Amino acid sequence: MRDLLVAAAFDLFTEHGYENTTIDDIVRLAGVGRRSFFRYFPSKEDVVFPDHERALADMVGYLDQDHPGQDAVTVACGAARVVMRMYAENPAFSVRRYALTRKVPALKAYEISVVWRYERALAGYLERRFAALPDGGARAHAVAAGVVAAHNYGLRSWLRSGGSGEVAASVDPALDLVRRTWRDPEDTVVLITRADTPLWQVVQRVETALRAPDQDRPGPARD
Amino acid sequence: MRDLLVAAAFDLFTEHGYENTTIDDIVRLAGVGRRSFFRYFPSKEDVVFPDHERALADMVGYLDQDHPGQDAVTVACGAARVVMRMYAENPAFSVRRYALTRKVPALKAYEISVVWRYERALAGYLERRFAALPDGGARAHAVAAGVVAAHNYGLRSWLRSGGSGEVAASVDPALDLVRRTWRDPEDTVVLITRADTPLWQVVQRVETALRAPDQDRPGPARD
Repeated sequence: MRDLLVAAAFDLFTEHGYENTTIDDIVRLAGVGRRSFFRYFPSKEDVVFPDHERALADMVGYLDQDHPGQDAVTVACGAARVVMRMYAENPAFSVRRYALTRKVPALKAYEISVVWRYERALAGYLERRFAALPDGGARAHAVAAGVVAAHNYGLRSWLRSGGSGEVAASVDPALDLVRRTWRDPEDTVVLITRADTPLWQVVQRVETALRAPDQDRPGPARD
Repeated sequence: MRDLLVAAAFDLFTEHGYENTTIDDIVRLAGVGRRSFFRYFPSKEDVVFPDHERALADMVGYLDQDHPGQDAVTVACGAARVVMRMYAENPAFSVRRYALTRKVPALKAYEISVVWRYERALAGYLERRFAALPDGGARAHAVAAGVVAAHNYGLRSWLRSGGSGEVAASVDPALDLVRRTWRDPEDTVVLITRADTPLWQVVQRVETALRAPDQDRPGPARD
C-alpha cells in the first residue's frame, strides 16, 4: 500500500509536475482512500522522502551501538554510510527523486530540513564523545557538518551519474577525507632514527607505531 | 519604514505569538499600508530575517575581494565573520529573534534554508580555490560546512548568553579550530635539532619557520 502510493505519486509528479498533483490525484491512481494516504504520510512532501524517518532511526541506532577500536569521527562516518545505503537500495528511485527535488523549491527546502536532522543527530553523538575536550562542542558541530557535507557531495556525484556504479565509490573517498582531517591531532607518529638503521627495522617500527589503521578504515568490503 | 515594520512585527510576535499575528496586524500597528510591507518583505517569515539578504551579498562581496597572503580556509572564516558582524550590530534584536526562531518551526525551517545559502556561497568559493586539488570538491564542501557550523555554534553560545560580551569571543575560537584543522596539511613544521642547542636559537628557528601565523589569525582587534 505504502509502495503503491509512492509509485503513483512519482508517476504523477513526473507526468504533470509536483505542484499540479494533488493528494486526491495520488489516491485515485493508487486506488485507495485519502485516509490511507495520511496513515503513511503527514503531507505531500513526505511521499517524496518515504525512507528518511527509517534512515534517521537506523542512524541513531548505529550511533547507539558499541564500536570498539573506532574513534568518534570514524563512527560518525559509519553513521553517514547508513543513510548512503538507503539511497543505494533503490538507485532508480533515488535518481528520479533527485531530478524532482532539484526542480521543486518546496522539496529542496524539505530536503535541507531532513539533512539538518541527520547533522543534529551526529552532532549530539559527537558532543557526548568529545565532552572532555575543551573545544568539544565546536569540534562536534564542525565534524558533524563536515561528515554530512562530504556524504552529500559524494552522493550527488553518484546521483548525477544516473546512479551507475557503487555509491560507496563516490561517497567513501569524501568521507575518508573528513575522517583523516579530523582524527585526533595528537595521533601523529614522529619517527626518529639514525641514518644507518636498516630499512626493515624502520618499517617494523613504523608498523608498530601506526596502531593498525586498516582496522577502522571505511570501505564497502568491510561493511 | 522598514525598521518600523520590523519593530511592529516583533512587538506583535512577542505579545501574541508568531502564528497568531497577521501581516494586516503588522501594517496596522506600523501605520502603513499592506503594499508597503510587501515592498520590503516577500512574506511574513522575511520580516524576521530582514538583514540576511544584505549579509549574504556582503559575504559574496568579501569573497570576491583579494586576500593576499591568506589561504582559502582563512578567507572562508573571514567571510563567516561578515555574517557574525550582522548579528553583532544589534545584539538585543538578535537575541529576541533567536528566542522566536526556537519556538516557531516555520522560522526554524526558514533559518535552516538561509544557513544553507551561506554554506553554498562558501562552497562555491572554495571549489574555485581548490580546483587544482584531486579532492577539491569534497574538500570545499566539507570546509564550507565546517566553517558555517563552527560559526553557528559560537553564535548560538553568545545568543544563549543573552548577547552579552563580544560575539567574536564566542565565534573566533570555533572558527579557528576549523581553520587550523583544514589548513594545507603539508603546512607542517618539523624541527630537528641537537639536544645541546641553546633555547634562544631554537626559538629563532621556530619563529622563522612559522611563516608569521599572526598575520592571518582572526581576531576582533584586527578586523
